[in-house]
Amino acid sequence: MHPTNDPNLESFIEVDQDSHFPIQNLPYGLASPQGGGDNFLCSAIGDYIVNLAALEEAGLFDGPELDGKKVFQESTLNAFMDLGHEAWNEARTYLSKLLSADEATLRDDESLRQQVLTPMDKVELLLPIDIGDYTDFYSSEPHATNVGSMFRDPENALKPNWKHLPVGYHGRASSIVVSGTDLHRPQGQILPPESDDTPIFSACKLCDFELEMGFVAGKGNELGDPIPVNKADEHIFGLMLVNDWSARDIQKWEYQPLGPFLAKNWATSVSPWIVSLAALEPFRIEGPDQDPEPLPYLQSEDNWTFDINLDVFLQGEDMDEPHKICASNAKNLYWNVAQQLAHQTITGCNVKPGDLYASGTISGEEESSYGSMLELSWKGTDPLEFPNGEERTFLEDGDEVTMTGYADTDEYRIGFGEVTGKVLPPKDLGL
Amino acid sequence: MHPTNDPNLESFIEVDQDSHFPIQNLPYGLASPQGGGDNFLCSAIGDYIVNLAALEEAGLFDGPELDGKKVFQESTLNAFMDLGHEAWNEARTYLSKLLSADEATLRDDESLRQQVLTPMDKVELLLPIDIGDYTDFYSSEPHATNVGSMFRDPENALKPNWKHLPVGYHGRASSIVVSGTDLHRPQGQILPPESDDTPIFSACKLCDFELEMGFVAGKGNELGDPIPVNKADEHIFGLMLVNDWSARDIQKWEYQPLGPFLAKNWATSVSPWIVSLAALEPFRIEGPDQDPEPLPYLQSEDNWTFDINLDVFLQGEDMDEPHKICASNAKNLYWNVAQQLAHQTITGCNVKPGDLYASGTISGEEESSYGSMLELSWKGTDPLEFPNGEERTFLEDGDEVTMTGYADTDEYRIGFGEVTGKVLPPKDLGL
Repeated sequence: MHPTNDPNLESFIEVDQDSHFPIQNLPYGLASPQGGGDNFLCSAIGDYIVNLAALEEAGLFDGPELDGKKVFQESTLNAFMDLGHEAWNEARTYLSKLLSADEATLRDDESLRQQVLTPMDKVELLLPIDIGDYTDFYSSEPHATNVGSMFRDPENALKPNWKHLPVGYHGRASSIVVSGTDLHRPQGQILPPESDDTPIFSACKLCDFELEMGFVAGKGNELGDPIPVNKADEHIFGLMLVNDWSARDIQKWEYQPLGPFLAKNWATSVSPWIVSLAALEPFRIEGPDQDPEPLPYLQSEDNWTFDINLDVFLQGEDMDEPHKICASNAKNLYWNVAQQLAHQTITGCNVKPGDLYASGTISGEEESSYGSMLELSWKGTDPLEFPNGEERTFLEDGDEVTMTGYADTDEYRIGFGEVTGKVLPPKDLGL
Repeated sequence: MHPTNDPNLESFIEVDQDSHFPIQNLPYGLASPQGGGDNFLCSAIGDYIVNLAALEEAGLFDGPELDGKKVFQESTLNAFMDLGHEAWNEARTYLSKLLSADEATLRDDESLRQQVLTPMDKVELLLPIDIGDYTDFYSSEPHATNVGSMFRDPENALKPNWKHLPVGYHGRASSIVVSGTDLHRPQGQILPPESDDTPIFSACKLCDFELEMGFVAGKGNELGDPIPVNKADEHIFGLMLVNDWSARDIQKWEYQPLGPFLAKNWATSVSPWIVSLAALEPFRIEGPDQDPEPLPYLQSEDNWTFDINLDVFLQGEDMDEPHKICASNAKNLYWNVAQQLAHQTITGCNVKPGDLYASGTISGEEESSYGSMLELSWKGTDPLEFPNGEERTFLEDGDEVTMTGYADTDEYRIGFGEVTGKVLPPKDLGL
């Protein structure tokens, strides 16, 4: 075990047992101070934001990989991510030490503490990465089976390629937004009930979320040089929560033959925190049996995956509190992140720091673990019921969707915070 | 007619009648001087490169939109494009005047001419834009009909949605390369002839090009605010040539149900020059009849399109010269660029300067105008024959593909230069 993952490690900052941000986490983000001031790259400890730019300015990242590079003065994490996994490990080691209970440098320097530590409720968290390309996979077998059963044939729900390769598609990067961004219901072409070939212009009637996790690429590769499956983790900086908002009726009409396009391009929400692979190391578990055996370029040593709890909450405008509507887990993925990255680059496609790769909806076998309204209401035929008597098949205006994720040991919890967003009424486009 | 398009306008630089770069063109690019020195944003006139950074430094773009902005000191055109169409028109007007035969400022200042004008063969041209998102449409009816006939049903070659919306998908931006970049044949999963469900790992055997044009977004829109179809040209900076390299056998196995992914992610080549909409204004013609009538958000005034000749040449390693294998035209597109942009943003999706939108393969009705090997060889059943006795169904190692595009009046030619690239043998991946 790496010393930064030692469960006995404690910070001089008090951290609640169920906090997402113990000293073993040290996620990465971008903070904007309330009331003005420059944005700064940050980490988190308990209820505090840690100013990485200030620590760097104070010369406290002085190892061989980081010293003088000034990557934390940037407005995104991309330059830091581009330094590679040895630099990431170095930063984690320094940060863990600076925040630990038995290290005096920060603990005993009140002036430095003032500069470096800010209560979390005094900042707004922004998107910390510049995302060049966004890729979305389709890697949960229960989800792909549910969708295939509903829209195609329950007997042949998975296409023949599904167990041979991680099916995926290119997504829209420009409309990726950080948690807390509310979104107008999209409008476009949908088929009315009475027609199968003449669309109408309408606000989306089947508005949905998709519970996903994403990984962020760190150092990339040159065009022409695939990333081998068992080197992939050196290129993966960390993981985020992803809500892949979806307009099911727009999708159904448009997606043949080239795949989802406008159904997904109006927004994708991500958590403000990126949790590093290093912090998730204790939560690597053996992945599912893969049968048929993947081709050699997809054979991942130990076939690992992550054990991360993932919950979805919905709160309508007339509900007093958010209600949990889904409890899933990252281990419900058939293909792991290393296989996804190896597959996507096997043609020689190049990866750049900040590229985002989402998993696809993470549904489990149980109904309560389905990661979309489409599946939870089984295509609208079986509404969800809420304590105030309301029902939902798909999302209504004013509904706020919140996803959270965390991995537990007996001693501590590594969390992702949350990704939240509200569906606003459609804009008047004058059409 | 805008004065910069006046056919009688002449430059003090001599320009051949069939040059792609008369004073009416003034395309945008990025040059790297041979033998070192800083890259610089540029235009072209005849056989010369025009250094825009030097003109800006000399204070010669001093109008209200450009003065002091220093956008041509940047390493890409993005900042200039972000200024909007009034700034683009201002730059075009200044540049046209500075290069015209009866304007002394540059013509009679030998020292300035030395700084500003460089013979084209003394520079290398680079990719002049930072491309955030790349979208690829499927907007030529003959192409979509050919593909639908070959792979699905000749009686129902077009899906029901095709004439209601410009079908498209998100592409991979990271692997867009400039003309002159050679590419290794991609490798991945393909089906062997004897199986329809068990793939093998192999170099692509059905390697192809696709003749396309692309438009580059200039100033974008805010998330949530669609770009109206009849305002779209204010957001479109210009057009490029695009070769959308395709691995047909990888595509056939992977593309269900989410569309093309690895088949297209290994490279897309573009011309180094972006020709502005302003320069193409004289080549706007009436587009095809659209029946059924598009929904109002897709109704483009005058339903315009462009008349631009597009040719493809192939030269194998054992051929003495390139042979023309396709003569097509941009007017073979059913959906125009305004409709494409209006459609892609109708959900509220945001566009950023530098986003690239390709047309899809531009095939005409005639066999000689088919814009891919897939169609030219009709899925490999009807090989192309070359003067040295060689045949081709798909691209072989060493084949160089060159696309060129130009629009003609009686007086001058507006050209795009060319986009070229060679297929190199597959890399040894040790797999």
